[in-house]
Amino acid sequence: MTALNFADRLADACAARGSPACVGLDPRWADLPEAVKRGRPDSAEGRAAAFIDFHRAVIRIVAPIVPAVKPQIAFYEALGAPGFAAYLDAVAAAREAGLLVVGDVKRGDIGSTAEAYAEAHFDRAGADALTLNPYLGADSLDPFLARCRTAGRGVFVLVKTSNPGSRDLQDLDQGGAPLHARVGALVARLGADASLRGRGGWSSVGAVVGATHPRELAALRSALPSVPFLVPGYGAQGGTAADVAAAFDGRGAGGLVNSSRGVIFAHRAGPGKERHGEARWERAVEEAAAALRDDLRGALAARAAAGA
Amino acid sequence: MTALNFADRLADACAARGSPACVGLDPRWADLPEAVKRGRPDSAEGRAAAFIDFHRAVIRIVAPIVPAVKPQIAFYEALGAPGFAAYLDAVAAAREAGLLVVGDVKRGDIGSTAEAYAEAHFDRAGADALTLNPYLGADSLDPFLARCRTAGRGVFVLVKTSNPGSRDLQDLDQGGAPLHARVGALVARLGADASLRGRGGWSSVGAVVGATHPRELAALRSALPSVPFLVPGYGAQGGTAADVAAAFDGRGAGGLVNSSRGVIFAHRAGPGKERHGEARWERAVEEAAAALRDDLRGALAARAAAGA
Repeated sequence: MTALNFADRLADACAARGSPACVGLDPRWADLPEAVKRGRPDSAEGRAAAFIDFHRAVIRIVAPIVPAVKPQIAFYEALGAPGFAAYLDAVAAAREAGLLVVGDVKRGDIGSTAEAYAEAHFDRAGADALTLNPYLGADSLDPFLARCRTAGRGVFVLVKTSNPGSRDLQDLDQGGAPLHARVGALVARLGADASLRGRGGWSSVGAVVGATHPRELAALRSALPSVPFLVPGYGAQGGTAADVAAAFDGRGAGGLVNSSRGVIFAHRAGPGKERHGEARWERAVEEAAAALRDDLRGALAARAAAGA
Repeated sequence: MTALNFADRLADACAARGSPACVGLDPRWADLPEAVKRGRPDSAEGRAAAFIDFHRAVIRIVAPIVPAVKPQIAFYEALGAPGFAAYLDAVAAAREAGLLVVGDVKRGDIGSTAEAYAEAHFDRAGADALTLNPYLGADSLDPFLARCRTAGRGVFVLVKTSNPGSRDLQDLDQGGAPLHARVGALVARLGADASLRGRGGWSSVGAVVGATHPRELAALRSALPSVPFLVPGYGAQGGTAADVAAAFDGRGAGGLVNSSRGVIFAHRAGPGKERHGEARWERAVEEAAAALRDDLRGALAARAAAGA
């Protein structure tokens, strides 16, 4: 168990790398470099073995560049039990490499079941932080928050997601404010107590806010000054560094910005197209991770210079 | 792949058993009968092996009594990769026994990730239906609905859950109606097209509505006449057969009522207490499943006689 508060661990990791960049581990068989797939049978076991080779290589390459990775469990679950084992390997390998690990699991269930999910993804898998779905309410988050208090873990609760469909529920009007603002307020309330706050005032209870909604991102930052944001939607989904800069304070603190396909599949300029060539896919990942880091660093420096 | 529409398969299965009873498979190591745990080491592998012995026995016992089972994946995930394999075994064993299988996974994610979850839980695991979380909006449900159209599958989208915390978001006022009513309307709209409807008019796109909220259950049934309900919260959580009868029409159609602990842990009258004795735990499960079936059958008959 890690004694330090997650909020402090997050701040320290971002400061050490000089960037809030997070690399999403979303392995897809069709997009893997040929060098990784070679010799692996196209079965669940073969794909899972290729996923392990792939994420271990990506982790080794990005560990000196970024503070965090975010494995997306859905792509692993799609391979059944060997895929689930490969997900656990991704979490373990990234922690061993000194990276913070955000398990992108988006779980949410009633009390006793939520306890089982917390056991699965914090106690057993060992993720530093998890994404969670708030639809079932505060009691569905309690078992996770207990581990934030006692075991240095963190959570990022879905508030305003990056997809177009996020408008269907999350933007419903709530007496003049969108529903996601109410959910954001709930997240802030749950994370407000001292046992969940780090020395900088940030909470270990964060929010997921998509880069694809820069106006909402800025409004949520203003309303929730102590809630760290995990910002997906940068890069392949359309969000820019300028869009996400609003999530951060003048010292570059405020959460993580995730890019998945743009980094891990950087050897493909587009579907079926090569940019760097298969033989140099690792170099492409390294360059893309450094570009992500620098892009965010530049946008945050510009924001700091502007006196935000 | 099953050609028949899920709505029809559900109606046929309930008619064949004369009851909408669903048995929840929520294995917990601490509550397993001693006879099942005996000789199994208290490790992830040992527990997963015991879970498999246990759910296979429960499936064998309840298959002639009820139309469906609902394995809760969280309890399996808590054991890591061997637990995930045990979950897949539960789905496969129940299907082989002729039961409808509702995978209680409550997944929800953006498009390409939702596609991976649909692949994991429909294509690979082979569940007949899944529970899904609607917070990310309609596009997060699309990959699942595609399989409802083409592969005879069904979904139950969380609308009003059984836990106390369901009030936090689900009951927020939306211009005079609670949010869950808006979500219910979205579910009805998504399931309205002919490709998703069975011959009785019911949709393959259902809703989760807790037995612990009988007033909301009745209001939702009235507002959503073609949406089948998966009703948790019966029994251990406090819902009665009379509470849930409102979910059904005069012919006993309308969905499934789930009981988990009350059936599978019937050998325990309460924490640490025995009712039937460890040696007769299978008999306790059988009696409890039959009591669940009969209790619901009686409540629905009373409702039909009252001309509902």
